[in-house]
Amino acid sequence: MPENILVGALIVGQSGGPSAVINCSAYGVIKAGLENPNITKVYGAYHGIKGVLNDELMIMDEEDAGELENMLHTPSSALGSCRYKIADPDVDDTDYKRILEIFKKYDVRYFFYNGGNDSMDTCNKISKYMSRVGYECRVMGVPKTIDNDLAGTDHCPGFASAAKYIATSFMEVSRDSQVYDTGMITIVECMGRHAGWLTAAAALAGTKGDGPDLIYLPEVDFDMDQFIADVKRVYAEKKNCIVAVSEGVHYADGTFVSEAKTSGTDGFGHAQLGGLAARLADVVKAATGVKVRPIELSLLQRCAAHCASGTDIAESFLSGKVAVEAAVAGETDKMVGFACTRDENGYTCTPKLFDLSMVANTEKKVPLAWINEAHNGVTQDFIDYCLPLIQGETGMVTEDGLPRFVQLKKVFAK
Amino acid sequence: MPENILVGALIVGQSGGPSAVINCSAYGVIKAGLENPNITKVYGAYHGIKGVLNDELMIMDEEDAGELENMLHTPSSALGSCRYKIADPDVDDTDYKRILEIFKKYDVRYFFYNGGNDSMDTCNKISKYMSRVGYECRVMGVPKTIDNDLAGTDHCPGFASAAKYIATSFMEVSRDSQVYDTGMITIVECMGRHAGWLTAAAALAGTKGDGPDLIYLPEVDFDMDQFIADVKRVYAEKKNCIVAVSEGVHYADGTFVSEAKTSGTDGFGHAQLGGLAARLADVVKAATGVKVRPIELSLLQRCAAHCASGTDIAESFLSGKVAVEAAVAGETDKMVGFACTRDENGYTCTPKLFDLSMVANTEKKVPLAWINEAHNGVTQDFIDYCLPLIQGETGMVTEDGLPRFVQLKKVFAK
Repeated sequence: MPENILVGALIVGQSGGPSAVINCSAYGVIKAGLENPNITKVYGAYHGIKGVLNDELMIMDEEDAGELENMLHTPSSALGSCRYKIADPDVDDTDYKRILEIFKKYDVRYFFYNGGNDSMDTCNKISKYMSRVGYECRVMGVPKTIDNDLAGTDHCPGFASAAKYIATSFMEVSRDSQVYDTGMITIVECMGRHAGWLTAAAALAGTKGDGPDLIYLPEVDFDMDQFIADVKRVYAEKKNCIVAVSEGVHYADGTFVSEAKTSGTDGFGHAQLGGLAARLADVVKAATGVKVRPIELSLLQRCAAHCASGTDIAESFLSGKVAVEAAVAGETDKMVGFACTRDENGYTCTPKLFDLSMVANTEKKVPLAWINEAHNGVTQDFIDYCLPLIQGETGMVTEDGLPRFVQLKKVFAK
Repeated sequence: MPENILVGALIVGQSGGPSAVINCSAYGVIKAGLENPNITKVYGAYHGIKGVLNDELMIMDEEDAGELENMLHTPSSALGSCRYKIADPDVDDTDYKRILEIFKKYDVRYFFYNGGNDSMDTCNKISKYMSRVGYECRVMGVPKTIDNDLAGTDHCPGFASAAKYIATSFMEVSRDSQVYDTGMITIVECMGRHAGWLTAAAALAGTKGDGPDLIYLPEVDFDMDQFIADVKRVYAEKKNCIVAVSEGVHYADGTFVSEAKTSGTDGFGHAQLGGLAARLADVVKAATGVKVRPIELSLLQRCAAHCASGTDIAESFLSGKVAVEAAVAGETDKMVGFACTRDENGYTCTPKLFDLSMVANTEKKVPLAWINEAHNGVTQDFIDYCLPLIQGETGMVTEDGLPRFVQLKKVFAK
């Protein structure tokens, strides 16, 4: 019996904002955990790390195996999520002592956390603490973020499905907004406070001739005068203009355009209820006199499981499964990401382990080389990077014409 | 040779706001027209009746038959649309003379107009005029409206696909908004200025346990105090609340809530950029202190072909096809609607002709008997009416993971 064999229970938790496929990753962990002889029990933490702290653990062994499979097509976090930032253990180790207590109570030897930047940080801190106090435990990060901003990995589970939804919606909105011969400007706001991956994904629609004319990302400074000039130029040429803009675009001084109280160009001074798109629409309407429609994709873009990428679903499931296999084989303190190739032979994606300490709290942004010189579009390099990720359809089961989402029994451990 | 045989060219035009399936109806007309020996040529009017007035007719015979089939899954009006309200011929017959001139120029004996209320009115006026001047011509309305507000017919092509998108999105948003344990109120605004059919469709999501808690339709007066009380009650119970609200809700004095400049309850007096959802979110936030997220489904709900109802696609195509068959058989001045049954044997839908004069300019609203007593939800009768309509998936062809929309050559007649 090799010395790296570790037998015990497993906890999987989900954290941060939902995605269309975060449950695929969790299901990958759960299924592999349930099937692995070294894992004695699989618990789902109710609302992430708070479920551990509150001793609210769902026994996944009690769930119906067929029903669990519906997690593959259920958006959002089926186990419940949280936005709990765990303290630095050197400052306050209260939470860590409690986590250790719960781990001991249920003989937990495997901990998997499914989330974004903060979750990888939580993983990393727990892993370090357990190692320091000498509690044998393997801790793995299972990434998820529509923002696609985790370091190391080629891309993040969840991004591709949001990208597919965004590109699809742009194609539809493009057709819709060009139907009249009376002229129209459409401004669509996409998520991404610091990284422009999602907004850039709108460019995929352009490969089919139905994409945005202009794309503005938060990786570069936003210039309102240039923006208005861009829109006017496109509109003059086409009598139509479709804009994709990231919620995180900011002026050169770092002020978010959505939050700027006044501006020499737009002259805003009153309270704003609408988001960035509504604000920009008002500016453009004043500058052009043309009919302008603002659209905010809002959280629709992060939970549209009905339009998820088949590739994303498969890869997300794989990342969870590989996390379990790697941990059982002796790995700990790692995140399961992807190494990919794109060449004349097509696209390949291989799971790859990254040190949590490298991943935690680093943001990966769209490379400046992939943004055009005018700062209002992306290059072919981005398309080549992104297009393989959105391939394949969801395969979602429907019932009465509607999605069949997972219904968990939620049997809590005593 | 029976005397009702009429040989000549056909014009089909599209008008008004787009839908996910308006091209299915047009394709039904085009395909049946191309295949019918009495129809010598099939023209598509570029941007509706304006295409006739401007002598901009696309020769559909020149299009590739296989490519045309992609109209079944292409949202918006592939032939181009307009919002042109034709004059009363007794007041000004300029347009009618021009239409007659074009009809004669191309030997047009069949005219099909694909649209909502105004389009049926246009049809009716053209039909009456042609009859009065003794030009033999058969005129048929092919209905389309996501608003579902045309009289006579059981339902309108286009409604079901928007309803399916709305119900699906509510299920996803519901999962998304309940993921944290910190409480949240979500307010989703649906289209429908005068009729609440689309907003009511959110209730379909409730049949799967993921629907809105409260639904507000424009068929009844909106009471801001009651609305706030409703939201508070639901939130107190569930620590979560999801609201579906029609853009057209109005106070008892008829003022749209979205446009009311001041209100005793909400105290607004400043310019609003956001729509109704943003406004209500602000009111609810002030009244509860809870995190509130407004979502406006905007035109996404009317062009989401990727989430179209298979039933809607099939019925829309059928209405166009039947319009041609009926016209060739001698009918004129009619709209092709549906007569449906819903009982223990399931759902049946049969095309049925309605007099255009009966349909034009009448709005069909959600029956008051289908709205609950508290005016914040719909009854099972609505569910039974609507659920059969959203059955079946789109069958949309994809290419590179994205929709394959129709690309017309647009060969114009000289």
